[in-house]
Amino acid sequence: MFSELKINKDRLVYIQLKDYIKDMILKGMLRSGEKLPSTREMASMLKISRNSVMYAYEFLQDEGFVYMKKGRGTFVSDVKVDFQEKWSIDWEDKINQYGKLSERLDIIKHEAKWEKGMISFKSIAPDEKLFNVDEFKKAFLNRMSIEGEKVLNYGYAKGYRPLIQYLLKYMESKGVCTKEKDILITNGFTEGFDLILSCLTERGDNILCENPTHNTAIKIMKLHGLNITGVKVEKDGVCLKDLSEELKKNKFKISYFIPSYQNPTGIVMPPENRVKLYNILKSYSVPIIEDGFNEELRYSGTHVSPIAAFSGSGNSIIYIGSFSKVLFPGIRIGWILADEVLINYLESCKRARNIHTSSLDQAIFYDYLNQGNFEKYIKKARRVYKEKYEFTLKCARENIPCEEIFGEGGMHIFIKLRNISSRKLLERCCKRGVIFTPGDVFYVNDEGYDTFRLGFSRVSEEDIKKGIMIIGQEAKKIGGWT
Amino acid sequence: MFSELKINKDRLVYIQLKDYIKDMILKGMLRSGEKLPSTREMASMLKISRNSVMYAYEFLQDEGFVYMKKGRGTFVSDVKVDFQEKWSIDWEDKINQYGKLSERLDIIKHEAKWEKGMISFKSIAPDEKLFNVDEFKKAFLNRMSIEGEKVLNYGYAKGYRPLIQYLLKYMESKGVCTKEKDILITNGFTEGFDLILSCLTERGDNILCENPTHNTAIKIMKLHGLNITGVKVEKDGVCLKDLSEELKKNKFKISYFIPSYQNPTGIVMPPENRVKLYNILKSYSVPIIEDGFNEELRYSGTHVSPIAAFSGSGNSIIYIGSFSKVLFPGIRIGWILADEVLINYLESCKRARNIHTSSLDQAIFYDYLNQGNFEKYIKKARRVYKEKYEFTLKCARENIPCEEIFGEGGMHIFIKLRNISSRKLLERCCKRGVIFTPGDVFYVNDEGYDTFRLGFSRVSEEDIKKGIMIIGQEAKKIGGWT
Repeated sequence: MFSELKINKDRLVYIQLKDYIKDMILKGMLRSGEKLPSTREMASMLKISRNSVMYAYEFLQDEGFVYMKKGRGTFVSDVKVDFQEKWSIDWEDKINQYGKLSERLDIIKHEAKWEKGMISFKSIAPDEKLFNVDEFKKAFLNRMSIEGEKVLNYGYAKGYRPLIQYLLKYMESKGVCTKEKDILITNGFTEGFDLILSCLTERGDNILCENPTHNTAIKIMKLHGLNITGVKVEKDGVCLKDLSEELKKNKFKISYFIPSYQNPTGIVMPPENRVKLYNILKSYSVPIIEDGFNEELRYSGTHVSPIAAFSGSGNSIIYIGSFSKVLFPGIRIGWILADEVLINYLESCKRARNIHTSSLDQAIFYDYLNQGNFEKYIKKARRVYKEKYEFTLKCARENIPCEEIFGEGGMHIFIKLRNISSRKLLERCCKRGVIFTPGDVFYVNDEGYDTFRLGFSRVSEEDIKKGIMIIGQEAKKIGGWT
Repeated sequence: MFSELKINKDRLVYIQLKDYIKDMILKGMLRSGEKLPSTREMASMLKISRNSVMYAYEFLQDEGFVYMKKGRGTFVSDVKVDFQEKWSIDWEDKINQYGKLSERLDIIKHEAKWEKGMISFKSIAPDEKLFNVDEFKKAFLNRMSIEGEKVLNYGYAKGYRPLIQYLLKYMESKGVCTKEKDILITNGFTEGFDLILSCLTERGDNILCENPTHNTAIKIMKLHGLNITGVKVEKDGVCLKDLSEELKKNKFKISYFIPSYQNPTGIVMPPENRVKLYNILKSYSVPIIEDGFNEELRYSGTHVSPIAAFSGSGNSIIYIGSFSKVLFPGIRIGWILADEVLINYLESCKRARNIHTSSLDQAIFYDYLNQGNFEKYIKKARRVYKEKYEFTLKCARENIPCEEIFGEGGMHIFIKLRNISSRKLLERCCKRGVIFTPGDVFYVNDEGYDTFRLGFSRVSEEDIKKGIMIIGQEAKKIGGWT
């Protein structure tokens, strides 16, 4: 029986032996009271060290699977599991509307999937090759030597204090007044947005946003049962005339905007429009959730302040920030800067959801930022993405028969075709190994059938050229222009 | 103006200068077109290196705050923020019922707080001094050298694959059948429980649990608007007779139990009761959420399988596991093991909430586990907590006039006084520098006024002795027994 155990090289030997014996015991193949082979016998039978066997037996005893009798050996305890009659539940049938809807709106599950060898323009995640892993390791080791094991125990729901202090200063350096405001650290933008809607909205409430807008934001708004009114995006951001019209027509609980490198259009709203937007919403008393998305990536030109800066000591803007759209998305750190009264509620809500964001990640991130690494990184990243952006734009202009190309930088451009279905185009391109995100997923209604987003951050220049050429060829074929 | 900048030692000099100048510009104290001092002048004025000034100017240019004219110097860009008329919102007034309730149920905010010098029996977190930081560092460095920067980019909503594989094996070694089941990695138990209720329950649904039970679970059930029926806990766990009675009376959507070292009573439900519990709930078709809380801490005696093991190839148990109650709570990693159909929905829900749990933390944790470190740690932890448990029990028996002391190990005991209000006792003890958790927060109704929980994991033996003596003295005074 024991000789059937195949030791593999990837796991510790004693753990494999321990788990194997546990399994035999639980299944009743080793019976209560039965004597195990001596450590010497077992070691020679399995051709492993006697130490490994001793270790395995010791842990088995600790966990209550065997007991030792002095001078007599090791015996099996009475722990066999009596499997009860099978009880099957049809879970499909038990899932509520929220669960079903979250699955239905999960584009990762329902859109074209990347397969090996494909050129994918779907991602707008940063290229990890630009990350400086050595600086990250240093930040880890430095923080561990300062904080030690403390950082591995529970932290505060609001976040790791030095990081909060750092981010308050950081927001001030963007011109944002932080008086009577506070910061809550979240697991990225997604959690921040979800927490805000959880605490401020009710099912059936009206919410205003750009159209098209961030797909994850649409998903979250829908999951909260909100009535979404999308205002069209023009060359310099959301159409302010339409915005005023909508505000005249309906009462809105809250609004959501992405002023920089808007997702998916890549448009940067100019300062004067930010001021107008602010004043329009102020006159209707509709608070603003400002998504600081990719603000850090601004390639060139003068600085543009976030809307939160124009509000001065006012408290009507809820700013959601996240470096992780640009750097280390895997560690999931974002923040909400808002009125301290609101943050106090959001903090309790965060605690009820997951206690707090990983203290370790926050501590490493703080150290990394505090050493000035972000400045160095973003300098490099801006240069690389700027080149890629210009190259992508050039290829798209030369190859894709389109009505308009949107996007002033960031990590993606947005294309409006000439009355060609982007889904039909995707289907054909997919067969030739090229995928992108069809634009309709960014619209709050059924618009955008002839649009799509091209994310270029993780695609090589060679592949950008090749991929866009294929997209162009297929678009021309569909349009009958070849 | 520049000479007012006080350089402090904790931050990089060029960042301080950069932020200072940004601030001046944004506030309009440096006007558009104004020339900045040359790098040489600035360096000598502030007594900092010229390199720091050059660096600061360069970043200011990158960020669009200044522009350089060749041979002429550095000039301020037109980026002054025009603060708009103040717009204040009364956020208190905007918070919905969910937000208000989550704040009201946030015991961290409303219970007695620890102050320096106090002896606190409130925590049931592990003692971080037992963590092996060197092994943790090794795991980090090892994983970084294997995975590199990839682990810092986006991962999968379901979790880090090697960790999922490891945990599936781990659950099998507890006797749990994993066929047609799957694992979702969560930010600890809290998120797991919240996700499950989000996908399976509606406001007004009935849920069954032990009474008393885990306070965070009560909070989450209440936030989901569930009608909670608590079944009293006896010496060997939840009262099965009462359980049957409740099931006869009402229809329940789901149930929640903590079979090992139940929080707060510390009771371990014996195997035969687990089987009975399973069969009773089966006969009423009420699925079970099993909280694997502190299962790993079992000090001695034969192994007790989780309820999920008894269900064999059935799919009616949703098991929530978490090492972080015992090890590294700060990195927030837990998991749900359940039917694969259910996990598929929970995965989409998780993605809509926060995309995924930190890839870095999952990767480090996997490496740490895979090197057999958990086995070594838990051996030490069991020994230390066993000693502390026995010592606490002894002190409590000798000093506190009580009706009953519950708890068979773990990191806490639960005490029922003789008709003395534990809140009154806490108030008095607090004045003498000793705090604990009053038992009423663990009850789903208004019971438990004369109970409290003593967490001893992070208290030294000296303080355990001293603290319990004070509790005993005050209890005797209130009861008039001195």
